[in-house]
Amino acid sequence: MFNEYFTMSEEQAIQYAKEKLTIFDENEALACKEIGDGNLNYIFKVFSTESDRSIIIKQSGPVARISDEFKLSPDRNRIEYEILKYQDELAPGLVPKVYQYDPIMNCTVMDDLSDHVIMRTEMINRKQFPKFSQDITDFMVKTLLLTTDVCLEHKHKKDLVKNFINPELCEISEDLVYTEPFSDNNNRNDVFPPNTAWVEEHLYGDDALKLETAKLKFEFMNNAQSLVHGDLHTGSIFVKEDSTKIIDPEFAFYGPMGYDVGNVIANLIFTWANADAYGDAVHKAWVEKTIVEVVDLFREKFLTTWAEKATEYTANYKGFNEAYLESVLKDTSAVTGLESIRRTVGLAHVKDITMIEDAEKRARAERMVMMAGKRFIMERGAFLTGADFLNVIKGVESQF
Amino acid sequence: MFNEYFTMSEEQAIQYAKEKLTIFDENEALACKEIGDGNLNYIFKVFSTESDRSIIIKQSGPVARISDEFKLSPDRNRIEYEILKYQDELAPGLVPKVYQYDPIMNCTVMDDLSDHVIMRTEMINRKQFPKFSQDITDFMVKTLLLTTDVCLEHKHKKDLVKNFINPELCEISEDLVYTEPFSDNNNRNDVFPPNTAWVEEHLYGDDALKLETAKLKFEFMNNAQSLVHGDLHTGSIFVKEDSTKIIDPEFAFYGPMGYDVGNVIANLIFTWANADAYGDAVHKAWVEKTIVEVVDLFREKFLTTWAEKATEYTANYKGFNEAYLESVLKDTSAVTGLESIRRTVGLAHVKDITMIEDAEKRARAERMVMMAGKRFIMERGAFLTGADFLNVIKGVESQF
Repeated sequence: MFNEYFTMSEEQAIQYAKEKLTIFDENEALACKEIGDGNLNYIFKVFSTESDRSIIIKQSGPVARISDEFKLSPDRNRIEYEILKYQDELAPGLVPKVYQYDPIMNCTVMDDLSDHVIMRTEMINRKQFPKFSQDITDFMVKTLLLTTDVCLEHKHKKDLVKNFINPELCEISEDLVYTEPFSDNNNRNDVFPPNTAWVEEHLYGDDALKLETAKLKFEFMNNAQSLVHGDLHTGSIFVKEDSTKIIDPEFAFYGPMGYDVGNVIANLIFTWANADAYGDAVHKAWVEKTIVEVVDLFREKFLTTWAEKATEYTANYKGFNEAYLESVLKDTSAVTGLESIRRTVGLAHVKDITMIEDAEKRARAERMVMMAGKRFIMERGAFLTGADFLNVIKGVESQF
Repeated sequence: MFNEYFTMSEEQAIQYAKEKLTIFDENEALACKEIGDGNLNYIFKVFSTESDRSIIIKQSGPVARISDEFKLSPDRNRIEYEILKYQDELAPGLVPKVYQYDPIMNCTVMDDLSDHVIMRTEMINRKQFPKFSQDITDFMVKTLLLTTDVCLEHKHKKDLVKNFINPELCEISEDLVYTEPFSDNNNRNDVFPPNTAWVEEHLYGDDALKLETAKLKFEFMNNAQSLVHGDLHTGSIFVKEDSTKIIDPEFAFYGPMGYDVGNVIANLIFTWANADAYGDAVHKAWVEKTIVEVVDLFREKFLTTWAEKATEYTANYKGFNEAYLESVLKDTSAVTGLESIRRTVGLAHVKDITMIEDAEKRARAERMVMMAGKRFIMERGAFLTGADFLNVIKGVESQF
């Protein structure tokens, strides 16, 4: 029955699990719930009603679930399967295990992580996760530095570049992150009305800013540095007290390493702005500490891993590790700024900001985030430590 | 007989032309001469002894012709065929026409350009070509700018990146251009003995220079900017009085645009150094004028073509065309320097220099070229016009 593609129902997902997987006993009673809340895919949780066994089947059709008109190659499912397998080798324990990929049904079978919660939700609940900065920097240094020409044989790395070329999902980022937030022409922006005039003046009207975003867009499109996750916001991270799992790498491609690091920092800034708006000093302090740790642990692990794993001959030239790291932190700063801005004015908002009910507080939160974002873009290269990043945020806080 | 790969003899190439091509009449008497002088491929010129019809069959085996142990994927023949077809659309008349590609015999059939002469040979004969700077800048602006994200739909451009990933031939450049000339460890350098001490001090011993070459190597490996020729020296250019044809694009891949422009300039510098050594003021003056024209015409045509052909939305942002061009000229300067140095001390020399019989004059020529090369690397970004480039050359001339 699964010889030709169709979008599965919950019943059919159970059938699929029975026919195609060996994880459940033959006559085990199974149930299924479709738990996807994204725009693109279907996520079937198939679970035993007799044991604690369960599994996720993630299906990606030829069209997005939000609209038949929004066509996307199901190749993203292959990319996701292959990269999850690879990331599990590079950074064991930090991604869900994948078991099989079915190119006909366009689905991937993977661990059920129902005991974890999406990090954005937990941030909105203002919970703290003591292992987070260690885990996320482990994940980033291992998946990013180890996939560069610093550590990989260059011909093999080029095969990976080829394998992970991802035109459609990159196009989404090119438009939504790099173009539309800065353009008053033909965009899908969704600006919070109290900030309309601000956005027109400080984004659409700032030619110097726009010029830098154009340079950064080309950096995003051309710099095949590292196998990036490509969508590493707090909605792509599952957490529980003692565990962090990075999911949804369907945007993965060879791009600038700083793209991932900057996404993590920007999304921490959103939860910081939320804590600020609600006057939660404890969570705010934890987030500030976490931002500093993410940058500084990334720096530290990057240099240690370079020393241990670099295979490229020139990697040992005096000062090259530091110079390379500085360029990564420059990109990190830029992307922190781009993500801060695009999630505020662009098509895809974050709940950390939109849930702020008091209009004045929300407007202030947005302007702080965007103002910091502009500095991260315009002065990228000037921020090289956790303290530098934090200073930008504390700087805009004192301005508003 | 051509159902399975074998390296053809001249007789078999005639047979191939009779069986597989329609260019000759059925009973036309044919002759063949293998005219390849490179290290990798066989070039069969098959010609009629009754008419003026002739054709080139270029065959690339699974091993290089210089050594069975030097294995290279015959995929380079497909790349060459596809890029020649594409370049002929982009820059009509500036590359040989290709007629067919045979993936079994790994050969491409193309125009016979026997009425042209390899430009390096003509430079050594100190002939001048009045159309050269116009033609080469036409070729570069059209094949380079038109294949970037400035002018191409980005998903289509990513398909081209994928199609032209060229691991083996890129590795040759990574090693021979970016690594070995600056390293006294495990290299295949071939240093002219009178310059050994100079090279040890000013190349192998210069940590600041080495650091910059490492950054540039990563730029070469990662910056998928434009579909570059990848080997655009004067040995890859056929000229006659009124015609220029760019050949041998088997090193083509998506890389930094400045790689091609810098190769052209460096190879003009070699003929300049040759004319200097032999006291040929006329040729030297023509080369100086040509270097200035190549840079300035490239600038001018780049900006005109950008204005006419850019499709990317951000390409119209104020100042982005100039900023982009400056970064191309920065790369151009760096590659001018790298090629100047690697052709002097590295494995692959140029006849313009090696033919200088007087050891003192040759040593001086080499040092001028390498000294200019170092400035082009270390001060890249400072040279934005033809006059700027020429000043570097005139500067080293006055130093020695």
